[in-house]
Amino acid sequence: MNRTFRLTLCYEGTRYRGWQRQGNTDNTIQARLETLLTRLLEQPVELAASGRTDAGVHARRQVCSFRADTDWDVGFMLTKLRQHLPEDIGAVNLEEAAPRFHARLNCREKTYLYRVWNSEAPNVFERRFVYPCPEPLDLDGMRRAAALLLGEHDFSAFCSVKHMKKSAVRRLSGIEIRREGNEVRLFFTGSGFLYNMVRILTGTLLEVGTGRRSAESVQAALKSLDREQAGFTAPAQGLTLWDVRY
Amino acid sequence: MNRTFRLTLCYEGTRYRGWQRQGNTDNTIQARLETLLTRLLEQPVELAASGRTDAGVHARRQVCSFRADTDWDVGFMLTKLRQHLPEDIGAVNLEEAAPRFHARLNCREKTYLYRVWNSEAPNVFERRFVYPCPEPLDLDGMRRAAALLLGEHDFSAFCSVKHMKKSAVRRLSGIEIRREGNEVRLFFTGSGFLYNMVRILTGTLLEVGTGRRSAESVQAALKSLDREQAGFTAPAQGLTLWDVRY
Repeated sequence: MNRTFRLTLCYEGTRYRGWQRQGNTDNTIQARLETLLTRLLEQPVELAASGRTDAGVHARRQVCSFRADTDWDVGFMLTKLRQHLPEDIGAVNLEEAAPRFHARLNCREKTYLYRVWNSEAPNVFERRFVYPCPEPLDLDGMRRAAALLLGEHDFSAFCSVKHMKKSAVRRLSGIEIRREGNEVRLFFTGSGFLYNMVRILTGTLLEVGTGRRSAESVQAALKSLDREQAGFTAPAQGLTLWDVRY
Repeated sequence: MNRTFRLTLCYEGTRYRGWQRQGNTDNTIQARLETLLTRLLEQPVELAASGRTDAGVHARRQVCSFRADTDWDVGFMLTKLRQHLPEDIGAVNLEEAAPRFHARLNCREKTYLYRVWNSEAPNVFERRFVYPCPEPLDLDGMRRAAALLLGEHDFSAFCSVKHMKKSAVRRLSGIEIRREGNEVRLFFTGSGFLYNMVRILTGTLLEVGTGRRSAESVQAALKSLDREQAGFTAPAQGLTLWDVRY
């Protein structure tokens, strides 16, 4: 009986080379899961995720889909998965989905969170999930710059791939920047994101926050379509795939 | 100029053999700090902490004291410490203290937190700080048992050292048990704690919570002064020294 499943995961990305399976290494989250599901279900299983996450990036909620010919109960399959997954990958939920459900193709919107630790005092307990930036940050300036990035644009300037074959047009529907204690949290919501896009957006906004560039220069960078005009790529460890909507 | 300093630390205990310096290994928090301070201040520095923490136990707030003959500004010394401490030990604060201040002798009260992760779904992001116990927990029963432990008692039954040379009488002034989402948090407050005492108290209360023993049996265990009558020693990773008061 061929069925489609929808698996919701969380993971700490620290020791992985990102979501996507790569040639010889099985040190990716996709490879770990595919190997495990293939072994458990005794048939080749291929996973589709809502999108890739880069090496070192975390996910609070990542959705994937796969098909398998099995009559296993989903509760039993979830328990089996939890028994065998490494401690830095968590199976949050597993359910049977509509036959044509596809985690990437059906994904409507994603939210990423970038966590900046904005204090001289170190954050010992969450150090793997934040990027330390102790300088004072002008959040109002960052919010002004963020507003200039919203909407549908060609985001070539905010992408690490030099020669995009496909369109670099994306719709950024929200950037929310808020302080919570010593932490500054940046939430980015959009239909899709280019390679390193959230990290370059964050790096650029941090350059505004520390006074290294003006809010207006961000709009100029966007229009230039030139990666050199945007800011630095903020480190992977501060980034978490926060939510995925269908 | 001989001065006394009060240093507030936090640490993730995962990779250390506890607070206290031990013979040949420098893999304790005390040894790391003493070695660093001795090198920075170019004189032998000895640290006193409010109390030891066991191997694997964390501290959100640990207070220590030391004396040194130096005219360094405390802000400068704190910056130097932060530059050289490993990423799992944080210097929260440093100030000059009264000449006779001693972190252990002057400590009035301590609070420990034991974190139980009470869900089938794994806690990937905080896994180093919680103890997973997915069984349903009867918090009211645990609270009834906890109430029987409050006050001044000989806690020999809740101590891992078999032949105590000193008194095992301690005053337990509070045990607060609360649910926060999927987590059950146990806060223990008292003037002092015996070796493994909080972990054995937690293990015993968890046996009440899962129905393995009655609330009343906890009082019998206390009166027996016999370690065998109390519950299991809950793992170190769930325990955090939460606060220290002077």
